[in-house]
Amino acid sequence: MTKGRLITFEGPEGAGKSTQAAMLIARLEARGIEIIYTREPGGTKLGEAIRGVLQYNAAGEAPCPESEVLLFEASRAQLVRQVILPALERGAWVVCDRFFDSTTAYQGFGRGFPVELMETINRFAVGEAVPDMTILLDVNVSLGMQRCAKRQAGQAMKYDRIESEALEFHERVRQGYLELARRYPERFRQVDAMRHAEPIADDVWRLVRDAFFPEG
Amino acid sequence: MTKGRLITFEGPEGAGKSTQAAMLIARLEARGIEIIYTREPGGTKLGEAIRGVLQYNAAGEAPCPESEVLLFEASRAQLVRQVILPALERGAWVVCDRFFDSTTAYQGFGRGFPVELMETINRFAVGEAVPDMTILLDVNVSLGMQRCAKRQAGQAMKYDRIESEALEFHERVRQGYLELARRYPERFRQVDAMRHAEPIADDVWRLVRDAFFPEG
Repeated sequence: MTKGRLITFEGPEGAGKSTQAAMLIARLEARGIEIIYTREPGGTKLGEAIRGVLQYNAAGEAPCPESEVLLFEASRAQLVRQVILPALERGAWVVCDRFFDSTTAYQGFGRGFPVELMETINRFAVGEAVPDMTILLDVNVSLGMQRCAKRQAGQAMKYDRIESEALEFHERVRQGYLELARRYPERFRQVDAMRHAEPIADDVWRLVRDAFFPEG
Repeated sequence: MTKGRLITFEGPEGAGKSTQAAMLIARLEARGIEIIYTREPGGTKLGEAIRGVLQYNAAGEAPCPESEVLLFEASRAQLVRQVILPALERGAWVVCDRFFDSTTAYQGFGRGFPVELMETINRFAVGEAVPDMTILLDVNVSLGMQRCAKRQAGQAMKYDRIESEALEFHERVRQGYLELARRYPERFRQVDAMRHAEPIADDVWRLVRDAFFPEG
């Protein structure tokens, strides 16, 4: 029985998850709610060490696809026990920039591992930390990639490994997310993210307000 | 279709797995067989980095039990793809000092995670790398612990985390292994390890010879 709320943002690359999370957090904080923001992988000391392994820095060797799934899940399991559940128990709200649906979408629908198997491993990793609401920011692949390219040109960063993968992969990820939204209508809310940030944030806020502050 | 053979040693602490693995390897090498020996966790650069995380060295923070399972499995998945399957494919034999049954016995039967769930994650981690033979070295808890204490007194090492856990835990692990041997009689061979190393090694060799060198 948790008192806080767990809200996750999901969606393809370039959907605007970090921006929308920040905008939602500002509105929630204006209501005096304590917010914990998490971004995967990482968020704990162990998660940061795992992030180093996933990016080859710690190991100097790329993880095989199975190992990649398991490392993400290990980081997530730790984040749940050390950060998310304690926060929810003391009444804080937790806003996650990606959570377990990312594994289902990317490694399941995208890479082709069995979707039900990814969900089974997700359930083991997160235990009772199931989102109260998952906001799917839907964006088509070409616009999402365009936004990533722009962001990276500005920051002079290289595409990361997942972002440089083929467009077909990203199309499968997008369709996977849409399928998950159909499968879990009780927690998924789908938002058209092919617009400017402000109207998207207004839609997100309306969804959150209607669900958790029905009094207005 | 692999040409080599995969033989795993399993059993509680103090069963003599490393000793028996070495003695079997000597006999197999005397037949001119190329042997790869593996010990979990580790065996790859990524696995060594994960070992550091599991021992708190890399992260400075203990993994939660779920994360521990997933880190072991991540290390195992990498070991399978980088070492075990390539070795088997070129005709080498692989001898493992612990493999996936350890997760089922320790984290499933021992810690109380659902056994079938541990087996599901095991299957994801190892893929087609299922042992041709699993040698269960059975030892009761008091003798096993006595051997560990002697070994550690000699080497001036501290008990590691798993070895210092309660005796009841180790009893569940032992009974779990015996249950696995009943469930998977096609690959499990149970050996009484409460004897000196030489008669145990003779029994192990008889089992391996009968299974893989029926001509003698």
